[in-house]
Amino acid sequence: MKVSIIGTTGYGGVELLRILHQHPTFKIQSIHSTKDEIPIWEEYPHLYRLFDKKLEPIDAEQIANQSDIVFLATPSGISGQLASEFVNKNIKVIDLSGDLRLPAKDYETWYKQEPVHESLKSQAAYGLPEWNRETIKNSNLIANPGCFPTASLLSLAPVVMSDLIDPASIIIDAKSGVSGAGKSLSRNTSLSEANENFKVYKVNEHQHTPEIEQQLLQWNSDVQPVTFTTHLLPITRGIMTTTYVRLKEEHSTSQLLELYREIYHQQPFIRIRPENTFPSIKEVAGSNYCDIGLHADSRTGRLTIISVIDNLMKGAAGQAVQNANIMSGLEETTGLDFVPMFP
Amino acid sequence: MKVSIIGTTGYGGVELLRILHQHPTFKIQSIHSTKDEIPIWEEYPHLYRLFDKKLEPIDAEQIANQSDIVFLATPSGISGQLASEFVNKNIKVIDLSGDLRLPAKDYETWYKQEPVHESLKSQAAYGLPEWNRETIKNSNLIANPGCFPTASLLSLAPVVMSDLIDPASIIIDAKSGVSGAGKSLSRNTSLSEANENFKVYKVNEHQHTPEIEQQLLQWNSDVQPVTFTTHLLPITRGIMTTTYVRLKEEHSTSQLLELYREIYHQQPFIRIRPENTFPSIKEVAGSNYCDIGLHADSRTGRLTIISVIDNLMKGAAGQAVQNANIMSGLEETTGLDFVPMFP
Amino acid sequence: MKVSIIGTTGYGGVELLRILHQHPTFKIQSIHSTKDEIPIWEEYPHLYRLFDKKLEPIDAEQIANQSDIVFLATPSGISGQLASEFVNKNIKVIDLSGDLRLPAKDYETWYKQEPVHESLKSQAAYGLPEWNRETIKNSNLIANPGCFPTASLLSLAPVVMSDLIDPASIIIDAKSGVSGAGKSLSRNTSLSEANENFKVYKVNEHQHTPEIEQQLLQWNSDVQPVTFTTHLLPITRGIMTTTYVRLKEEHSTSQLLELYREIYHQQPFIRIRPENTFPSIKEVAGSNYCDIGLHADSRTGRLTIISVIDNLMKGAAGQAVQNANIMSGLEETTGLDFVPMFP
Amino acid sequence: MKVSIIGTTGYGGVELLRILHQHPTFKIQSIHSTKDEIPIWEEYPHLYRLFDKKLEPIDAEQIANQSDIVFLATPSGISGQLASEFVNKNIKVIDLSGDLRLPAKDYETWYKQEPVHESLKSQAAYGLPEWNRETIKNSNLIANPGCFPTASLLSLAPVVMSDLIDPASIIIDAKSGVSGAGKSLSRNTSLSEANENFKVYKVNEHQHTPEIEQQLLQWNSDVQPVTFTTHLLPITRGIMTTTYVRLKEEHSTSQLLELYREIYHQQPFIRIRPENTFPSIKEVAGSNYCDIGLHADSRTGRLTIISVIDNLMKGAAGQAVQNANIMSGLEETTGLDFVPMFP
Repeated sequence: MKVSIIGTTGYGGVELLRILHQHPTFKIQSIHSTKDEIPIWEEYPHLYRLFDKKLEPIDAEQIANQSDIVFLATPSGISGQLASEFVNKNIKVIDLSGDLRLPAKDYETWYKQEPVHESLKSQAAYGLPEWNRETIKNSNLIANPGCFPTASLLSLAPVVMSDLIDPASIIIDAKSGVSGAGKSLSRNTSLSEANENFKVYKVNEHQHTPEIEQQLLQWNSDVQPVTFTTHLLPITRGIMTTTYVRLKEEHSTSQLLELYREIYHQQPFIRIRPENTFPSIKEVAGSNYCDIGLHADSRTGRLTIISVIDNLMKGAAGQAVQNANIMSGLEETTGLDFVPMFP
Repeated sequence: MKVSIIGTTGYGGVELLRILHQHPTFKIQSIHSTKDEIPIWEEYPHLYRLFDKKLEPIDAEQIANQSDIVFLATPSGISGQLASEFVNKNIKVIDLSGDLRLPAKDYETWYKQEPVHESLKSQAAYGLPEWNRETIKNSNLIANPGCFPTASLLSLAPVVMSDLIDPASIIIDAKSGVSGAGKSLSRNTSLSEANENFKVYKVNEHQHTPEIEQQLLQWNSDVQPVTFTTHLLPITRGIMTTTYVRLKEEHSTSQLLELYREIYHQQPFIRIRPENTFPSIKEVAGSNYCDIGLHADSRTGRLTIISVIDNLMKGAAGQAVQNANIMSGLEETTGLDFVPMFP
Repeated sequence: MKVSIIGTTGYGGVELLRILHQHPTFKIQSIHSTKDEIPIWEEYPHLYRLFDKKLEPIDAEQIANQSDIVFLATPSGISGQLASEFVNKNIKVIDLSGDLRLPAKDYETWYKQEPVHESLKSQAAYGLPEWNRETIKNSNLIANPGCFPTASLLSLAPVVMSDLIDPASIIIDAKSGVSGAGKSLSRNTSLSEANENFKVYKVNEHQHTPEIEQQLLQWNSDVQPVTFTTHLLPITRGIMTTTYVRLKEEHSTSQLLELYREIYHQQPFIRIRPENTFPSIKEVAGSNYCDIGLHADSRTGRLTIISVIDNLMKGAAGQAVQNANIMSGLEETTGLDFVPMFP
Repeated sequence: MKVSIIGTTGYGGVELLRILHQHPTFKIQSIHSTKDEIPIWEEYPHLYRLFDKKLEPIDAEQIANQSDIVFLATPSGISGQLASEFVNKNIKVIDLSGDLRLPAKDYETWYKQEPVHESLKSQAAYGLPEWNRETIKNSNLIANPGCFPTASLLSLAPVVMSDLIDPASIIIDAKSGVSGAGKSLSRNTSLSEANENFKVYKVNEHQHTPEIEQQLLQWNSDVQPVTFTTHLLPITRGIMTTTYVRLKEEHSTSQLLELYREIYHQQPFIRIRPENTFPSIKEVAGSNYCDIGLHADSRTGRLTIISVIDNLMKGAAGQAVQNANIMSGLEETTGLDFVPMFP
C-alpha cells in the first residue's frame, strides 16, 4: 500500500517517516513540503542514507494518482483545504491538524481561523481508535486527535461513561514537552530559556479544550466545561495529564483500577498500571503506549488520574498510523511495536 | 552576629553558605556535619578558596557558646532533638526540617516518625514572614516552612482569608525540581532516568499536606482537606504550584489581581504578575522571590493560581535567612537581594 | 535461535531487551540477574505488559542447556568467569564487559582487577565487525568492544591503516552521556549535579586507553601512546569523539572523505557525512549507526575527525546483536534497522 | 559613577544588569536598545519590580552626557561604530563584541565584516585583566575578550610564557553552553534539537581563533597556528576548554601546578585546583571565576589543561565589570563576589 506524507519537515512528519520506514505493509511513495526540493536528510541529517527521497511540491493531483493513503502533517488552516481535494478523489486521508475535529463555531472561537466547510467536516471520523474503531474502519477521512485530548480522553473515558463522577468537577493539569510546539522557533522553547525552567501557557484558553469537552459530552451529556491548563516541560517528547475529578460515591483505588482494566482490556496500546504505581513520561517515549495510573483519595473524595503518552507517537504520528492500519484492514498494531526507549 | 550551620553538606546547608557569604551582618562562625572533618570545598569544590572552614562535629554545647543563631539544615527526625538543646541555651534557632511544623498526631501520621515534645513544638513560630512576621520577631525558635507549603500558602492566602472560594474545592498540582529530594541518591533523580522524563510521586500522601491544611484552617476554618499532588521536574531548582479553586461568586481576573496586589503590597519578596502573564520557574531561580499569576475563568467558575519559587531559596535557605533577619531586628531583605539568574 | 541475557537489569541488559524484542530470529529464552526473582517490569516499568518474563538466578548449567547464545551484560570482573563456563559448554557467548579485551598485564594495570586466564582470552574475537568480521564469524566467544574504543577506532582506522598520519600525534577528546556509567548511582550522574554541568573524568587514565592502542597497533605498528580524555555530558545516551591527528602530508578534506567513503562503503552502520557537515549525537540516538565527519586544516596540518554513536547501541547492545547476527550466519543488520529517534 | 548599557536585551546585556544591580559604586543610568521603548521587565520578566527602567533608543550624544562608563553589549559590526562616538567624547567604553580585538586584516578574514578604523583599534586595550591590568587601568577603551579566548588564554599563559611547550602543538577542544550563541533563535539551540544532543560547530573556522593566536604570540613568538574546535553543550551557561600541548621536557603534574599557582597567586578570579582534581562547569556558574586543573602524562609527554568559566560572566559581563572596576580605580572584585550557584 502506497502512502504519501504532506508536511514532512515538521516533527509530526519526520516521526511518520521513522514509523513508516519499518512498516511491513505501507510503503512511502512520496514526501511533500513547501520547502525546497532537497533530500529530506539535508533538513534532517539523522535520515542520511536511510531515506534518499527528495521533498516534492504539494501537487494534489499527482499525489492522488500515486497514493492509497495520504497523511496530512500540515498546520491547522492548511490541512482542511488539502483534505478536501483528496477526499474528492477517493483517497484515504489522515489529518493530524485540528481542522477537522471541531464544529465550525468552536473552531472559529478557539483556533481563530476560518473553519472548513461543514460537508467536509461531517465526513471526518474522530480517530481515537479505542473508542471509535468501527467508525474509523469505515471512513476515508480521519481527524487524528490532538495530543492533549488523546491523553485526557483516555484518562477520563471509563469514569465519565460509567457516570461515577461529578460532571462539573473535571480539572486537567497537562504538561507537555516542547516538541508539541513543533519546529517553529521561539524563546519559550530555546534551550537557554527552557532548560531548568517550567512554564505555564494558555491558561484556560488552549484550543484543545473544546475537543476534549465535545468527546466527553458524547459519552455523558451532563459533563460541564472542564478546566484545562497546559505547561511546558524542559523535555523534547512526552505529555502527562494529571486529572482531578470528584467521585459521586466512594470507590476504592482498586475498584477503579479494576474498572479501567476491564474497559481497556482489549486495547493493545493502553497499559493500566498496578495499584500504587504511576507511569512517567520516559516510560512511553518512542512508543505508541498510553499508560494510566490512578488514586482515589477518601480524605477528599477525589480521584486523581495520571496518563502519559509520547506526544509525537500516540499524540500524533503513532496514532495516525494506528488509524491507517484500521482503515486498511490491517492488524491495528502493525509497524507500531516500538519498545519505549529507556533510559 | 555569629551564625552556625548544622547539616552543612546537604543542599539546604550549602545554599545557606551561598547566601550568608554575602550577608553584611551575619558572620559564619562554624559549619557542622556528621561527615568527616574536611574543608567544605572537598565536598563542594565550587567553594574552593571561598570558604576555608572545616566541617566540625555537632557539639551543641560548643556551638551554643559561640553562636547567636543556629541554622538546622538537618533532616526531619534529627532537627527536633538538636533544636531542643539550643532553645534551652537561649540560642536563636531556625529549623529547616519538618519537625516543628505539625502537631504530634499529624507528624506521626504523615512523617511516620516520633514527634518532638509538645513543649518544644509550642515554642516554635511558623516562619512564613508574609503572614507571621510579628510572631517570628518575638520568637527564638522558628519552624521554617516546607517548600511546597510556602508556594501553596502564598498562592491561596488572599482568597482563603477573604472567603472568596468554595472551601472544599482546593486542588494543588505541584511540580518540583530534583534538588527538593536533597543530595541522597536515587534512580528517580539520576540524570539517566530523570532527564527527558517527568514523574508524579506521593499522590495524596505527601507529608506537606497537613502543613498546608493547618495554616489554611487558621485563615479560614471552613477549609476542607485539600488535594495535593507532587511531580518531579527534570530540573535542579524550582517549584511551581498550579492551584485550582472554585469561586463562590464570579470575579474577574483583574479584580482578583487587585486583591492580591493590595494584600501583598508591602511584601518585598512577593511579585504579583500583570494580567495575562504568568511566572515561570527560571524567573525566580537563585532569588528569594515568590512570583504569582492568576486567571479566573468565567466558563467554569474556577480560579487558577500559579506560583513559583526557588525551592532552595524561598523554599528553604532564603526564607530561613529572611526569618533570621526578622528575629535579629534587621531589615528583612538584608543579604537577600539576589537578582534571579536568567538565562 | 534461543538467547539468554545475564546482567539484565543494567542499562546494557535492558537495551538488549529493546532490540531483541523486535528481532525476527533470536528469541529471548530467559533473563538473569543477581536481583530478586521479580518480573523485569517491576525494575523497568516501561516494559510492563511487553515482557512478562521473570528475572532468574544465574545458573550456568541450566542457561547452557536452553540457550544457543548468551549475552553477558555483567560488569568487568564477573563476565570473565561466566564466559568460561559457557564456552566450555560450546555455547556462543558475547561479553559486553572489558574482561576479554586486553592482555592480562594491561588488564591488571588499567582495570586494577584479576585478569581472566590467558586460554580463555585467546579464544575471544574482538567484536568490531567492520574490521574483524571474518574472525567473528568463526568464533564462539566475542569480546564486545568498549563504547569509546568503538567510536575512536572507527574514526581512526582509515588514516592509521593508510599510514597518512604522524603516529605519535593521536589525541582523542571523548564526551559521553551518563548512561555510560551504568545504573549505579553517584553525585556525578545525579540530575542536580550533572544537569547544566559538564565534567572531565579519568584524565589520561581511562581503562579504554589500552584497548584503543592495542587495535591501532595491529593496524599500524608505529602508533605511539594516545592521549585520551573522557568527559561527562549532561545527557543520557551518546558519545562523541573529537580526534586530532597530524597529517604526514597535506591532504584536502575531500580527499580524506573519499578515502573514508571507499573504505566504509560496504559497512551498513557507518555513515560518512558530506563535506562541511558533521554528525551530532542525537542524529544516531537509538540506532546502531556510527556517523563520521572530518576536516583537514591546511593552517595547522592537522585533521579533526568527529564520530558519534549511541553508547548503548553501537557502543554496547547494538554491536553485541550485530556480532550475534554474524556468528549465527544472519544478515548483519537483522533486527537492527532502528531509525534514530529525532527529535 | 554612572554607567549606561547599550544592547541591553541580549544575554550579555541582561547579565550586566544582574551584576550592576548589586554593584556598590556603579549606578545604572540608562539602558538602551534598538527595541521598543518598553520596560526591560516586559522583555525579561525575571526583572519585574527589580528594574523599572525603560529601554531607550541609542542616542550617543545623550548617553555621553549622562554617563561615565558605557558598556557596549551590541553585536560585532555595530559596536565599533558606537565605540568611536563615545571615545571621541572621552567616555570610558567597554566593548563586549569582537570589533576591537583584531587587526583589520584578521577581522575581515574571520568575521567577514568591515573592520573599524585602525586609529580606533589602536586605542583599545585588550581587557584580560590577569595579564593586562596596567594597560587597562590607563585606557578609556577596552576590547573585552571573547569567551573562548578568555578560557583558552588563562589556561595556556603559564606554559606558553615559560616556554615549556612545543609551540606547534597547541590544540584547544572547547565546549560551550548555548547562551554563547546569544538570544537569536536557531534549530541548533532549540530545546527539541539541543537537549540530549551534543554538536560540533565551526571546525577550524571559529572567529575566536586569531584572537587566541594573537595573544599567545605576544607571550611567545614561536607559537604556531592552533587547532581550535568548538562544540555546543546542551546547557545554558558555561565553557570548558580541554587543551592539549606537548611538553618540551618532562614535568610532573605537581611541578606544573606549582608554576600555575605561583603565576596566578594574586589573581582573585583564578582558582588552580589541587592535583588529581579538575573543575566542572557548574562549579563556576553565576560567578566570575576561571578554574583550572591540569595533568601531565608521562606516557605521551603531553599536558592536558582543563579550564572552565561562566561564558556570561568571566566570558562576557563579569569580565567587563572587572575591567570597569580597574579603569575606575576600584578594587577589582567590587560587586563581583558571586558565589557559584550550586547545585
